Amino acid sequence: MELSTKPLTGMRQLYPDEMAVEAYIVGRIRDAALAYGFEEYDGPTIEPVELFLAKSGEELVSEQSYLFEDRGGRRVVLRPEMTPSLARMLASAPEVSSPVRWMSFPVCFRYERPQRGRAREFRQFNLDVLGSAGVMGDLEVMLVLDRIMKNLGAPDGAYQIGYSSRELATGVLERIGIAGQDGQKALGAIDRIGKMQPDEWTAYAEAVLGDPGRAVLLGRFASVRSLDDPWMRETASGLPGFDSMLELRRLLEAAGLRAASFDASIVRGLDYYTGTVFELSDTGGGNRRAICGGGRYDNLVGLFGGRPMAGVGFGLGILTLRLFLETYGLIPADPGAASRPDVFVAVYSSAEAATALSWAESLRSSGLRVMMEIEGRSLSRQFRAAGRCGARFVVVAGPDEVASNTASVKNMETGETTRVQAASVAEHILSVPGSRQDSR
Amino acid sequence: MELSTKPLTGMRQLYPDEMAVEAYIVGRIRDAALAYGFEEYDGPTIEPVELFLAKSGEELVSEQSYLFEDRGGRRVVLRPEMTPSLARMLASAPEVSSPVRWMSFPVCFRYERPQRGRAREFRQFNLDVLGSAGVMGDLEVMLVLDRIMKNLGAPDGAYQIGYSSRELATGVLERIGIAGQDGQKALGAIDRIGKMQPDEWTAYAEAVLGDPGRAVLLGRFASVRSLDDPWMRETASGLPGFDSMLELRRLLEAAGLRAASFDASIVRGLDYYTGTVFELSDTGGGNRRAICGGGRYDNLVGLFGGRPMAGVGFGLGILTLRLFLETYGLIPADPGAASRPDVFVAVYSSAEAATALSWAESLRSSGLRVMMEIEGRSLSRQFRAAGRCGARFVVVAGPDEVASNTASVKNMETGETTRVQAASVAEHILSVPGSRQDSR
Repeated sequence: MELSTKPLTGMRQLYPDEMAVEAYIVGRIRDAALAYGFEEYDGPTIEPVELFLAKSGEELVSEQSYLFEDRGGRRVVLRPEMTPSLARMLASAPEVSSPVRWMSFPVCFRYERPQRGRAREFRQFNLDVLGSAGVMGDLEVMLVLDRIMKNLGAPDGAYQIGYSSRELATGVLERIGIAGQDGQKALGAIDRIGKMQPDEWTAYAEAVLGDPGRAVLLGRFASVRSLDDPWMRETASGLPGFDSMLELRRLLEAAGLRAASFDASIVRGLDYYTGTVFELSDTGGGNRRAICGGGRYDNLVGLFGGRPMAGVGFGLGILTLRLFLETYGLIPADPGAASRPDVFVAVYSSAEAATALSWAESLRSSGLRVMMEIEGRSLSRQFRAAGRCGARFVVVAGPDEVASNTASVKNMETGETTRVQAASVAEHILSVPGSRQDSR
Repeated sequence: MELSTKPLTGMRQLYPDEMAVEAYIVGRIRDAALAYGFEEYDGPTIEPVELFLAKSGEELVSEQSYLFEDRGGRRVVLRPEMTPSLARMLASAPEVSSPVRWMSFPVCFRYERPQRGRAREFRQFNLDVLGSAGVMGDLEVMLVLDRIMKNLGAPDGAYQIGYSSRELATGVLERIGIAGQDGQKALGAIDRIGKMQPDEWTAYAEAVLGDPGRAVLLGRFASVRSLDDPWMRETASGLPGFDSMLELRRLLEAAGLRAASFDASIVRGLDYYTGTVFELSDTGGGNRRAICGGGRYDNLVGLFGGRPMAGVGFGLGILTLRLFLETYGLIPADPGAASRPDVFVAVYSSAEAATALSWAESLRSSGLRVMMEIEGRSLSRQFRAAGRCGARFVVVAGPDEVASNTASVKNMETGETTRVQAASVAEHILSVPGSRQDSR
C-alpha cells in the first residue's frame, strides 16, 4: 500500500523556507521579550482534561480539544492553550521571586475547521507577568507586544491594541441593571458583537437578556471607544475598574504607546480573565482575526491550592502574525540568510575526497560554515550547488591542489580565484570582510 | 475541587533554569549542524498511524505510541520519532536539490515507563542527509555528531561512536547459513546482546535460530570489534557491505574522527535501516542508554510513491545528552547568562513611575535589556531584585532625579554611582565595556 504524501489537515509541517520565516519571527519576538527581562519556560503538550475544564471555557474542551484516553486510562488533552499549565507551574514552583516574567513558544492544538490564519496545530507565543496585581503589569505586557510589532517593522497605524477591563464591564453592567448570571451572559454577547451584523446582534442581545431596554444599554456600553465618552464617564464614575483604566491610559501615554486605545467591545473569550483585557488587530482589515489577545487573570494560580497569585499575559499566534507581516510586505526576502554556509568545498574526484575532507574539517574548526561535496558531481554542477546554497567562497580540491597542498579559493562575489596554502585557507577567507554570513 | 499541582508522569515541564540548559545544548547542536550546511524544518506532532506501522517496527506503534481517534474518526498517533514524517516531506517536496541536509528538534512521545534519561514526552535532535547513497553521506552525519560533542566540551575518550552495517551483517549471516526470515530474527537477537547476560543471550539465540551451531557463529559475528578481525576478513571478504565499511573507516581517519570504531553488535532497532548503522555512547558506563542512534534507510522515501531517495541520519535525545553532560560536569554554571537584563530601573514611588517608564523605554530602544520595577517595593528590595536578575546597572528614578531630569546610574560591578542626563543614560551605559550581557 502506498502511503499518503500529505500530512493530516491543519497540521504544522514546515519546509526549511517556511521554517526560516518562523525562526525570523520567533527571533524578533524573543528579542522584544528579553528587552523587558522575560525568561523562557516550556510545559507539557499532554495535560489532564481537568486542567482546562476549570477555567478555559466549555467550548474549548468539549468541542475543540484533542481529547483521548492514554494507555493508563487517563483522560488527557493536547494543550489548546498554555495559561493553565503556566498557572500550575507557578503554583508548584519550589521558589520564585515575584514578579515573575515568563515567556514560551508552545505548539498548541484545537480541532477547528482550518482556514486562513487558523490551523489545528499551531505555534503560539505566550508571555505573562505573575505575582503583580497593579496596572504596571498590564502596561508591561502591552509594551512588549508593541515592541514585538516594532521589531518586526510594523508601521505606525498598521495595527492597534484595543483594551478594556472585565472589572469595568462588570461594574458598568451592574449599574445599568445587568448583574449576576445575566452579567456573564452579557459579556458573552459583547464578545460576539464584532462577528454579527448590528440588527442580528441586537436581536441576539434581547434574547439573551430577555429585555430590549437592557440590550440597548449593553449595546451603548459596547460602542464606547474612549474613556472620555460622556455616557461612560457618567455611568462608570468611581468604579475601581474605571480608575484602573484611567491610570493605564496615563501610563500608556508616558511610555509612548500610541497604538493603544480603549475599546469597550473587547472582553476576550476565556473564562479566567478578571481585569484588563486587550487585543492586537490589523487596522487595514486584511486580517480579520485578532493577532493577539490577552488580559489579567488574578484567580487562576489559586485553583491549585497554596497561595493565590495575580497574573496578566497574552497569547500571540505566530501564523496569524505571519499573515499580517505578509500583508504589509514585512517578511525579509531571505529570512534564512544568516544560517547559510560560508564556504563550499568542491571535490574533483573520489581520489581527492580524503584531502578535501581534512581541509573542510579544518575550516569548520576555524568557525566557518562549510558545505562539502559528497556526491561526486562534475565541478560545474558543484559550482551551481555552491551558488544555490549561498556560499561566498568555493574551495576546490583538484589533483594539482592536492599534490601541491594548496587550495584554489574562489571568491564568489568578485569572481577572483587565489591559490592558498592548505593551512592558511581559513585565515585567507576570514580576512575578507563579511566572509561569514552572520555576526557569530 | 483543587487541581493537581503535578504534570502527568513523564511529561516535559521546564522551569526557566532547566529551559536555559536545554537552550544551551540546542544552541551548540544547531551550531554544529550549521557548520555543515544543514537547514531546519519541522513536521506535524499528530500523524496517521499508518505512517509508523509501515517501517518503524511493531513495538513502537502497538505498545509505546500515544494512539487515539481524533474528532474526525482518524486513527492518529503523537509522533514517536521523526524520520517517517521527514521521508514523507521529501517525497512530496515540490522541488529540492539533492543532496538535502535537514535538521529538526521535534518533541516526540512514547508511552514507556519513565526512568533515568527516558521520559514519555521528549525533545530530540534529528539530522539527515537525503538523496546521497554513498558512504560520504554516512561520514558527514557522523562528523556532525562528533562536532556536537566537541562543541559541548566532551573530552576525547568520554564517548565513542560505534558503527557497523546492516548490509554487512546480512551478507555475513548469509555466508554463515543464516538467511531470509532467520536473518531478520538474527538481527533482532544481535540488538539484544548488550541487554542480556552472555549465557542468557546464547540460550536466546539458540531458541531463535533453532540451532546451537548457528547461534555460536552469530555470537562470533556480534563480538567483532575491528574490521581487521581475521575471522571477519575471511568471512566478509568481497561483500559490498564490507567494502563500504573499509571505505568509511578510511574517510573517518582522513577526517580525524578518532571517537569512531567498528562494532558488529550494533544493528539498531528500527526496521527501516538498510546500510550503515551507528550509535554514540558514554565510555564511562555512567549512562547506559545510547545517547544517539542512526543509520542509513534507503527505501523509506519510496514508500510514498514517486522517486526513491536514499537517506542517512540520526536521532539524539536531548535529555540523554544532558545526563551525559552532567556526568562529566559540562553544563555551564549559568547557561542563561547571555539572556539576562543589562539594566534594572528602580522607581522610588508611584509619583516617579511615568518618568521611569519613559527612561526605561528609551534604554530599550537603544538596544539595552531593561527590567523595570512594577511592584512599588522599597529601594533596598529593588536593589536586591536587581542583583538577582543579574543586571550590571541600576538606574534610579527618585524625586530628585525626576525633578532634575538626571538619572542616578549605579554600576553594580564597581559600586560607583553617577548622575547622568536622562537623554544620555543609554550612551553612558553602552560606553562601559561588557555593559551588554551578550554580543548582540
